[in-house]
Amino acid sequence: MTLLRVRFAETDQMGVAHHGAYAAWLEVARVEWLRERGHAYTDLEAAGVSLAVSELRVSYRAAARFDDLLRIDTQLVYAGSRGCRFAYRIERASDGTLVASAETRHVATGRSGQAVRIPPDWSAFLRACAGAGAS
Amino acid sequence: MTLLRVRFAETDQMGVAHHGAYAAWLEVARVEWLRERGHAYTDLEAAGVSLAVSELRVSYRAAARFDDLLRIDTQLVYAGSRGCRFAYRIERASDGTLVASAETRHVATGRSGQAVRIPPDWSAFLRACAGAGAS
Amino acid sequence: MTLLRVRFAETDQMGVAHHGAYAAWLEVARVEWLRERGHAYTDLEAAGVSLAVSELRVSYRAAARFDDLLRIDTQLVYAGSRGCRFAYRIERASDGTLVASAETRHVATGRSGQAVRIPPDWSAFLRACAGAGAS
Amino acid sequence: MTLLRVRFAETDQMGVAHHGAYAAWLEVARVEWLRERGHAYTDLEAAGVSLAVSELRVSYRAAARFDDLLRIDTQLVYAGSRGCRFAYRIERASDGTLVASAETRHVATGRSGQAVRIPPDWSAFLRACAGAGAS
Repeated sequence: MTLLRVRFAETDQMGVAHHGAYAAWLEVARVEWLRERGHAYTDLEAAGVSLAVSELRVSYRAAARFDDLLRIDTQLVYAGSRGCRFAYRIERASDGTLVASAETRHVATGRSGQAVRIPPDWSAFLRACAGAGAS
Repeated sequence: MTLLRVRFAETDQMGVAHHGAYAAWLEVARVEWLRERGHAYTDLEAAGVSLAVSELRVSYRAAARFDDLLRIDTQLVYAGSRGCRFAYRIERASDGTLVASAETRHVATGRSGQAVRIPPDWSAFLRACAGAGAS
Repeated sequence: MTLLRVRFAETDQMGVAHHGAYAAWLEVARVEWLRERGHAYTDLEAAGVSLAVSELRVSYRAAARFDDLLRIDTQLVYAGSRGCRFAYRIERASDGTLVASAETRHVATGRSGQAVRIPPDWSAFLRACAGAGAS
Repeated sequence: MTLLRVRFAETDQMGVAHHGAYAAWLEVARVEWLRERGHAYTDLEAAGVSLAVSELRVSYRAAARFDDLLRIDTQLVYAGSRGCRFAYRIERASDGTLVASAETRHVATGRSGQAVRIPPDWSAFLRACAGAGAS
């Protein structure tokens, strides 16, 4: 579970958080989800492996506004040898309003962008999380 | 058809354009798509109506890199009285490589964010475009 | 004092936080500086007054990297009837390395962007803070 | 001379381009300034040298708004063996209103971020430009 406050820079002239800002929020949520489970995404990157985003889907349900505190619930819904899939719910922390639901698919890539296998220790960890259901 | 060059600021430490940058590119493509057809999005906004993004879906196929010239082909695939849907292909201009395909759904909203009808002249224009097939 | 973690989206292909990301961090630091002192920037905005940035200066001293925890020390160095000036030090939290020093100047503006006076209660608060030296 | 249109994603809830967006614009202007003179910044990067920003200063004079076409005049005001300095004027193309003036200082850095000398051919080119006055 990640808490995150909407930045002024993330608003647009409609007076709400710009829809493009959500991708960075989901990314923050993934990194924190890993950290909470004892894994640093920087370690995976140091090993030359990235979990590149291959698909992004966001359904915007209610506006998020400047200074709103948001709660992002992250769930690993699938983990394979070469990729994984996360699902997210973004809620306004003050009243639980659903702001957005989202999903990202990832493929493991090496330093030159080629598809690679997820290192065994990370793969075992991710598979265990995916099997464990909701975070 | 919109041409757009990947900015240095849009790259990330994987050495490619960050997946979050694409939302702004699609938005630029929509605005240019309207302009090419004689409609300024600023006019719609001045009338108090926005085409807020209610859903975003992006499939990333090949990396876009700093200074790459990208061509975005935009198509209005549906237009109704209260919303519309666009589909996009983002290609590398130099060799036609498909960088990403994407879709955005929009709902017409008023100044306070409430759902509204698209003004009649805009609605007629959008329906005509949606019926006309690929841009 | 604001703690902030460098987002992956904020990195660039040099492998460090992009210099353009710092403006948003300083903005977060200002908002938190106000909140720590019992003032919500959203209240000022709700009263129709913004502290628009009229000048930004950042000196970059050491790279900030993905997932680095940064500490931003904010100081209000001047407050007048129509504007104010903040100074900042951004340090890496882990070892105190100076990442950047910065300064922003602000002018109070109304809803249509015109220069206005800072409301009396906010002005008194800001002047008291500016007189009190370092935060 | 670079032409650039303000993106919707670059606006904030004050209804103007966010001050943090300007850093990316200046970067686009530098890259285009080089291209106009027959030099690709990607070539310098491919040689392992970056012109990292060591200082950024922006004076905001008038608001830039969504869809405004901006003209950025770039001038190389100093070039040495290890760094250089650019000055900029950002004007609204429609009426020449000065939107902002800015300055960036750069230091040449290698792949691991260490200070390096600018390669001789680039150094000669930059010195010639700096001596030639306004672009």
